[in-house]
Amino acid sequence: MLGSTASRVESGLKSFMDNRTLPLYTMMAYQLGWVDEHGAERPDSGLDRLRGSMCMLAAQSAGGDETIASAHAVAVELLHNYSLIHTDIQEGNPDRDGKPALWWVWGPAQGINAGDGMHALARLSVFGLRERGVAPEDISLALRHLDGATLSLCEGAYLDTVFQERLTVTVDEYLSMAHSFGGPLVAAALKLGLLSAGVREGPMVESLAEFGSKLGTAMRLAEDYAAFWGKGERDQSVQSRLIAKKKTLPVVHAMAEADPTSRRELGNAYAQRLLEPEHIARITQVLESTGSQQYTHDAIEQLMQDARKSLDQSGIPDESRASLEAVASYVVEAPLS
Amino acid sequence: MLGSTASRVESGLKSFMDNRTLPLYTMMAYQLGWVDEHGAERPDSGLDRLRGSMCMLAAQSAGGDETIASAHAVAVELLHNYSLIHTDIQEGNPDRDGKPALWWVWGPAQGINAGDGMHALARLSVFGLRERGVAPEDISLALRHLDGATLSLCEGAYLDTVFQERLTVTVDEYLSMAHSFGGPLVAAALKLGLLSAGVREGPMVESLAEFGSKLGTAMRLAEDYAAFWGKGERDQSVQSRLIAKKKTLPVVHAMAEADPTSRRELGNAYAQRLLEPEHIARITQVLESTGSQQYTHDAIEQLMQDARKSLDQSGIPDESRASLEAVASYVVEAPLS
Repeated sequence: MLGSTASRVESGLKSFMDNRTLPLYTMMAYQLGWVDEHGAERPDSGLDRLRGSMCMLAAQSAGGDETIASAHAVAVELLHNYSLIHTDIQEGNPDRDGKPALWWVWGPAQGINAGDGMHALARLSVFGLRERGVAPEDISLALRHLDGATLSLCEGAYLDTVFQERLTVTVDEYLSMAHSFGGPLVAAALKLGLLSAGVREGPMVESLAEFGSKLGTAMRLAEDYAAFWGKGERDQSVQSRLIAKKKTLPVVHAMAEADPTSRRELGNAYAQRLLEPEHIARITQVLESTGSQQYTHDAIEQLMQDARKSLDQSGIPDESRASLEAVASYVVEAPLS
Repeated sequence: MLGSTASRVESGLKSFMDNRTLPLYTMMAYQLGWVDEHGAERPDSGLDRLRGSMCMLAAQSAGGDETIASAHAVAVELLHNYSLIHTDIQEGNPDRDGKPALWWVWGPAQGINAGDGMHALARLSVFGLRERGVAPEDISLALRHLDGATLSLCEGAYLDTVFQERLTVTVDEYLSMAHSFGGPLVAAALKLGLLSAGVREGPMVESLAEFGSKLGTAMRLAEDYAAFWGKGERDQSVQSRLIAKKKTLPVVHAMAEADPTSRRELGNAYAQRLLEPEHIARITQVLESTGSQQYTHDAIEQLMQDARKSLDQSGIPDESRASLEAVASYVVEAPLS
C-alpha cells in the first residue's frame, strides 16, 4: 500500500528535478538515490518517501487533487532531504542509506550548498502550483507551514548539538528536543495534504497535525531505541557511532535513574571517542538494569497511543485512517517488536 | 543619506528579532553585530545594511509603504546574513566584520544551524505582512523572488568552490559565476522594494532588477580588485587568505593572458597553503604586467555603466535615482579609486 503511494511521490520528485542539469543537481540526485557519485544511474533507490507519502494519504483522505498533493509531497521530501544533508555534515556521519553521505563524497562546503539549494528548490515546487490555478493564499499558507517546520527543526538541531556536549540532560529536556526535531515536518506533510483538498484549518487539520507531531517524535525515539535493541541489518560500526555520538533517550533516562556506580560507568564509556562492541554490550546491560529500555519502549508506545487517538478524532474516512495507521505502525512499531 | 535608511532597516531587523530568546537567536544576534559571543550587548554595529537599504530606497522611489518595505528589507538582510554564515564555514574564514566568524565561535555544526534558521526566519518576516493586509499574491511573489535568488546564490557558490580546485577557469566562466553569486539578491532587494509600492512587473521592475544584478556582480568583482589593490584598512592576513583561497578575476585573466613563465610563477604561488607578503607582491606585479589590473578595473566600470544605464531607463524620480546611484558609487567605486 505504501509502495504505490511512495512510487507516486517518487515520480513527482523525478519529474520536478528533470531538466535540471547543473552539477548542483547531480549532488541532489545522488542524495535522492538516483545516481552514483559519478552521475551514473542507479537501480531503484527503494527509499520509502515516508513524509511525502503521508502527504499524499492525507490528501486522499479529504478527496484532494493528486497533482497538487504531489507538488506538496515533493516539497516535503526535498525539505526532509535538505535536513538530512546538513545533519550528516553536522554529525560527521560518513554514511547515509548504505552509501557514502553526500558531504563525504563532495566535501562539507558543497554539502552545505547542496542542502541550501534543495531548501530553496523545495519551495519552488510549491510556487509551481500557481500555474495550476492554486490560489496564492494556499501557496502562502503551505510555505508558512514548511518554514515554521524548518525553523523548529533548526531549534531541535541546536539543542541536539548542545546536548552532546553537556554531561546531564533531563528527560524532559530531551523529549522536548525530540519533539522539535521529529514532529514538525511530519505534521506539515499532513497539513499540506489536507490543504491540497482545500481543507485549511479546523479540527481535521488540528487532529492530523497532532497525529503527525506525535508520530514524528516517536520516529525519532524509535531510532534511539533501535541503536541499542534494533533487530535490523544496521551494521555494528553505524550502531557504535550512533551510540557514541548522540545522547539518546535510554541513556538520558539512565543517567537520571542509575546508582552512582552505574552512572560513573556510563560516563566513562561515553568519554571514549569510539565505542567498542564490549562497551556497547555493557552500556546496554546498564540501560536494562535501570529500566531505561522499558522506559523508552513505554514512552514510544504512549506517543503512538496519543497519535492514534488524534487520528481517530480526525474524522477522516476509515480507509484513509487505516492507511495512515498502517504507515505509522510500519515505521515505529515494526522495528521495535 | 544611506545612514538614515540603514538605520531604519536596522530598527526593522531589531524589532523583528525582538522577543526571540532561544539560544539559536543569540547566534543570530551575534552575526548581526548586536551582541558579543557571551550574549552581552555591543555598541552599534555600524554595518551598512546595504541590500536592505536598497530595498527601502526602491520602495520610496515608487511611493511604497514604509512598513511593508521594512519587512521586505528585513527578509533581504536575513537572507544575506544566512548566506554569509554559510560562506564563512565553506571557505573556512575565521573572521567576519572584524570579529570571529559565527562558526569560529560556536563550531561548524551550530553555524550550519544558525544559517538554516536565519534562512527560514527571512521568509517568516514576509509572511508577517499578511497581518498587515498585504495580498497573498504579493507575499507569494516576494517569496518567489527570494527563493529564486537563493537558488542562484547556491549555484554560484557551487561554481566558486569547484573553481578553487580547478587549475584553469576561463574569464567567461568566472564572470558567469560572479553574476550568479552577486547579482540575484541585490536584484531581489530592488524588486521587493517596488513590490511594496504595488509595482509587480513591467519596465520599472525590469530596469531596477537589471541595475541590481549588474551592481551586485560589480560588488563581487570589486572585492576581487580590492584583494590586490584595495586602499582600505583590510589587514594583511585577511588579504593573504583571500588571495590564497579564492580564484579572483585578475588571476583568472592573467592565467589566460600571461606568457608561460609568468603563468608558471602564478601557478607556483597558488600552490602555497598560505601566501607570504612577498608572494603577494610578486603576484600583484605579474597581474599588472599582464594588464589584469586594468582589465578588472574596466570590467567593473563597464558593469557600473550598464547598471547606470538601466537605472536611467527605470523612470523612477530623479531624487531616488540619485540616491541609488550614490549608494552604487559608494560601494563599488569609492573603494576602487
